[in-house]
Amino acid sequence: MNFLSNAAQAVNEWIDANIKTEFRYNINLYDAMRYSLKAGGKRLRPALLIIAYDLVNGFSTDLKAHPALAYAAALELAHTYSLIHDDLPQMDNDDFRRGKPTNHKVFGEANAILAGDGLLTLAALTFATAKDEIPPHRKLSALALFLEAVGPLGMVGGQYIDMNFADFADSGRGELLETLHTQKTALFIAASLSCGALLAGGGDLEVDALSNYGKHIGLAFQIVDDILDIEGDPALTGKASLQDEKNKKLTYPYFFGIKRSKTIAEEHIWAAKEELKRLKRDTAILSELADYIYGRNA
Amino acid sequence: MNFLSNAAQAVNEWIDANIKTEFRYNINLYDAMRYSLKAGGKRLRPALLIIAYDLVNGFSTDLKAHPALAYAAALELAHTYSLIHDDLPQMDNDDFRRGKPTNHKVFGEANAILAGDGLLTLAALTFATAKDEIPPHRKLSALALFLEAVGPLGMVGGQYIDMNFADFADSGRGELLETLHTQKTALFIAASLSCGALLAGGGDLEVDALSNYGKHIGLAFQIVDDILDIEGDPALTGKASLQDEKNKKLTYPYFFGIKRSKTIAEEHIWAAKEELKRLKRDTAILSELADYIYGRNA
Repeated sequence: MNFLSNAAQAVNEWIDANIKTEFRYNINLYDAMRYSLKAGGKRLRPALLIIAYDLVNGFSTDLKAHPALAYAAALELAHTYSLIHDDLPQMDNDDFRRGKPTNHKVFGEANAILAGDGLLTLAALTFATAKDEIPPHRKLSALALFLEAVGPLGMVGGQYIDMNFADFADSGRGELLETLHTQKTALFIAASLSCGALLAGGGDLEVDALSNYGKHIGLAFQIVDDILDIEGDPALTGKASLQDEKNKKLTYPYFFGIKRSKTIAEEHIWAAKEELKRLKRDTAILSELADYIYGRNA
Repeated sequence: MNFLSNAAQAVNEWIDANIKTEFRYNINLYDAMRYSLKAGGKRLRPALLIIAYDLVNGFSTDLKAHPALAYAAALELAHTYSLIHDDLPQMDNDDFRRGKPTNHKVFGEANAILAGDGLLTLAALTFATAKDEIPPHRKLSALALFLEAVGPLGMVGGQYIDMNFADFADSGRGELLETLHTQKTALFIAASLSCGALLAGGGDLEVDALSNYGKHIGLAFQIVDDILDIEGDPALTGKASLQDEKNKKLTYPYFFGIKRSKTIAEEHIWAAKEELKRLKRDTAILSELADYIYGRNA
């Protein structure tokens, strides 16, 4: 999608301009953070924040001067922190990410942990220091939505379940999978949208409908991820195939088979689009994005 | 000090009331966070935030209903995150902290990393969600001070230098040690005070003098820590002796000897008290605290 690549370019330029230091004792730590920030990636979360902001406030033509660009980039800092920590030997033990050696393979485990810690801190700091016309109470509310989504009852909690799912063997497999993927992926994607709507001054309807849309595309996104691990082309995904099986991961295809998993993903795409109808606005781009997420091959 | 133990009790009760969940999939993750939060500790940073707040706004009698208690506790969440990550095998590889097995020894390395990540997120989230009369723009400024102090140009950067100090062999040893300890310890202690002053509506003089006082007692605190590693009684410190030597740590005693290190610590205590004079207020408690930090045996 054209919008996605334009948003990605704006976020990449923000990162180049803002995530750097001339303080010689910390230059290499910044290099470690930048390495993973610049290792590619779709910049999906930043794009969602910008789209949601524009749905409320009117579409901007110049993404590089977008009033919510810093917040959008902050989401990518947090997303990158989570990838660096997830790839660690103590977690998923991945050697490659987006076709490049993972952070700890290049910088060592201690520095990878610190690069992740630094990125999470900078993500929240970006919300606290952004210079703009957005009222402070709105920034605090948006920051709260974002941090709840990536915290121990969100993404960190999801990764916790992923690491310890054997402890929940008495849960229904559908409930366990949905809880895992909701916390690990969908809540953050939902918060990317609701943050954007809130920063733009949106009301409960916008925040709620966009958040629900986000949860559904987030779950679909993760199910497609699980399917790509089996059916995907490593040359396109940048990841080795069948890593989930190797790592004994809890996935939709493992429990439900590929065909049923695809149906579940389709149902979430449908439900996501139903939420968009509540907005009574031009949501073509979000509708297109939902289809893109279902049909992606990388 | 009586004030320190009263502040610690108020912070401990805040933690008990706020860091918990009934969501069964994440209860154990909260247990891991609470384990390290409740493993003791002087609660120095929370106490400093409260003292600085009260210096500006007048002393409170009931610490448990203190208007800045949540922010004070948030600092302890961040401090505890840093201890959990620093103790990891990839970092300092410590088996004991405050006389108890370290987090990863009890919960495993993956869960210790996640407990740390969760605590850092909750620390910033606490600033964003605190319900009180403090104006939102002040909360954002205080959050920015705090996150800068614990981020990649602060505490995380200090730990980075600690892990990689061999890369800076061409630096003067005094400069390297002061940079390391300033980033790793002193900036956070300084920010604990300046955050408190800022939240209370203090002006530049208060923020600046308290921040400088904090940098000096922070450096003294770390030098005393290094000395306690050699001369301290493990029954009091809760840590095995001579860990720094075992881990080939960069310390003041290693470079300057114990006698000269004590003199440097004394000089920082003196400089800290000079900063207090600028405030023209009753700073007896901070003066006493500076002496306590120099004279502590645990």
